[in-house]
Amino acid sequence: MGKGRLEAFSDGVLAIIITIMVLELKAPHGTGFDALGPLMPSFLSYVLSFVYVGIYWNNHHHLLHAAKSVSGAVLWANLHLLFWLSLLPFTTAWMGENHFEALPSAVYGFVLLMAALAYYLLQRLIMSTDGPDSLLKKAVGSDWKGKLSPVFYATGILTSFWQHWLAQALYVFVALMWLVPDRRIERAIKH
Amino acid sequence: MGKGRLEAFSDGVLAIIITIMVLELKAPHGTGFDALGPLMPSFLSYVLSFVYVGIYWNNHHHLLHAAKSVSGAVLWANLHLLFWLSLLPFTTAWMGENHFEALPSAVYGFVLLMAALAYYLLQRLIMSTDGPDSLLKKAVGSDWKGKLSPVFYATGILTSFWQHWLAQALYVFVALMWLVPDRRIERAIKH
Amino acid sequence: MGKGRLEAFSDGVLAIIITIMVLELKAPHGTGFDALGPLMPSFLSYVLSFVYVGIYWNNHHHLLHAAKSVSGAVLWANLHLLFWLSLLPFTTAWMGENHFEALPSAVYGFVLLMAALAYYLLQRLIMSTDGPDSLLKKAVGSDWKGKLSPVFYATGILTSFWQHWLAQALYVFVALMWLVPDRRIERAIKH
Amino acid sequence: MGKGRLEAFSDGVLAIIITIMVLELKAPHGTGFDALGPLMPSFLSYVLSFVYVGIYWNNHHHLLHAAKSVSGAVLWANLHLLFWLSLLPFTTAWMGENHFEALPSAVYGFVLLMAALAYYLLQRLIMSTDGPDSLLKKAVGSDWKGKLSPVFYATGILTSFWQHWLAQALYVFVALMWLVPDRRIERAIKH
Repeated sequence: MGKGRLEAFSDGVLAIIITIMVLELKAPHGTGFDALGPLMPSFLSYVLSFVYVGIYWNNHHHLLHAAKSVSGAVLWANLHLLFWLSLLPFTTAWMGENHFEALPSAVYGFVLLMAALAYYLLQRLIMSTDGPDSLLKKAVGSDWKGKLSPVFYATGILTSFWQHWLAQALYVFVALMWLVPDRRIERAIKH
Repeated sequence: MGKGRLEAFSDGVLAIIITIMVLELKAPHGTGFDALGPLMPSFLSYVLSFVYVGIYWNNHHHLLHAAKSVSGAVLWANLHLLFWLSLLPFTTAWMGENHFEALPSAVYGFVLLMAALAYYLLQRLIMSTDGPDSLLKKAVGSDWKGKLSPVFYATGILTSFWQHWLAQALYVFVALMWLVPDRRIERAIKH
Repeated sequence: MGKGRLEAFSDGVLAIIITIMVLELKAPHGTGFDALGPLMPSFLSYVLSFVYVGIYWNNHHHLLHAAKSVSGAVLWANLHLLFWLSLLPFTTAWMGENHFEALPSAVYGFVLLMAALAYYLLQRLIMSTDGPDSLLKKAVGSDWKGKLSPVFYATGILTSFWQHWLAQALYVFVALMWLVPDRRIERAIKH
Repeated sequence: MGKGRLEAFSDGVLAIIITIMVLELKAPHGTGFDALGPLMPSFLSYVLSFVYVGIYWNNHHHLLHAAKSVSGAVLWANLHLLFWLSLLPFTTAWMGENHFEALPSAVYGFVLLMAALAYYLLQRLIMSTDGPDSLLKKAVGSDWKGKLSPVFYATGILTSFWQHWLAQALYVFVALMWLVPDRRIERAIKH
């Protein structure tokens, strides 16, 4: 079975998620600088989520690129990942409108955590479908980023009830960690 | 005529349907656990509809994969299927916001029923376009799932006026029945 | 220059137009049959517009299929067509919510008229880009449907101020006229 | 690494941006000509932004067409461009609803300016990835349009606080300047 339509469908869903989040940035009624101020938390949430969806699209691109073929189970693992990412517009809006308060920040982290686990599951499934000499397996290697991220998200969820800015700092930190493009797969393909 | 654009357009529409449904999950004003509670029915409706669109995408993927070519009639049968699926965001929102009451649950089932019939029609049309040695025909076989589902939906519509949770149980059951990936087509292609 | 991205972008825009129109079907607050009644005009508008976008997608599919190559002018003529079609969700909502009153019906017809002229322009441009032995030219032939439709739309616009149901009847009639798939291009390719 | 998915994802995001902007054109409650009047500024904003997204799609199409390959940095430079363009629906709505007042007009220009800089950055990155005999480098040449546009946008931002119609005139002028399709790349490919 080809990878083409899986990529096309995922691209479509990710493109829509990344774009409809901006609909939560409602145009304010006033036209002064003071009308923009209250939008700041929503805007910052949007930027963070935009970067996260960008990271997922980027890594997904590399992941599928290195995959040899996809099975029925891979299709569903991919939909499972898209499900959690599809909740990002909701959690982004909730966190932004409520100025990063405790529970919205925790729920935001929870969705990130579930998406990370879904991505990990998808990666494992593709590896096992590809068999022992999986190009992806070599490329991913120890996958310390993939293993560290859920730990940070979980810490973020817990700290959001104590000091919510610490949770935000953790979410930003993980995003920056992934922003460095994943050259492992590019390298493995070249060799 | 190529299948490429039919697949691309269908992927686009399905990706949008699956994603805009989340716009009905409005971010609540409060930030406590009690603010999330009232969202539960809407969230559960969303999960069910997400799974259904996922199933349709999955089966559509297999269907087109096994099709040899598409005719003008197939294009319209496909649009007919997309029409019924495009009503899912509406019925999902209506059912969720009204806590699975009788009529919304019946209408939800009605749209599922019409989509199932549209899918069946599309399948038959592709088979007849492909002619006597259609790969799809062999792959689909007795198609007991495709024949059983409308019966369950119709039962769901009727029972929703009596015990609406029974209708929900039926819709969930059919979804689970289809979640098992359709290996028939994969197998037929391999042989 | 390739046709691939022009097709992909147009598919994306048409897929979004056809799907976001359903967002205007707001889930009613009540849960009885009487809550569905007021939605009927909006629902009927939606069906009509869904069919129209389906027709445009279908014909666009055939048009690009028969085109040999695309120029910069063709890209803009295509965007011009997409602009008028992008106004359909607005006119559909306005006409539906106001029970097919005079001005909304006229504006609905006006957008259909402009889209028809934009399609005609796009068709002419592709023909002239393809040169004297354009496959499209042979396929389109006398193009009586393309020439008749704007006349019907213009009549619809005028009659909507007099008897608005006559305008609706004309719009439905043109849609039915086009629903018959355009076999001319399929035939021309086979020969 | 292939260009295919980068093009597909960008097409998806641009198609959604260009289409969801129309959701800000809310169907008015009245049905007379006087109900359409107040929509005019929003409609004109929509037309301007539609043309801008069309220009970006067009130029992006040519840009990627001339690119030999894409690196991880190019993927992120592309997401950076899409980020600024994704803010267009917000600034379009804000400017339109407030009848082109000073600050909304300035913010509209600011987003155009940032998108122009992001495009310039993306172009430079593709050139440097392609190496010394980059086809794109020859095609782009002096790039006077790309260098002039930010100057006009910056002037627009400043003048919007003084005479806001001057800012609008500048934004329209730059759009017209770009509407002339960029034949440089088409020519360079032919030679």
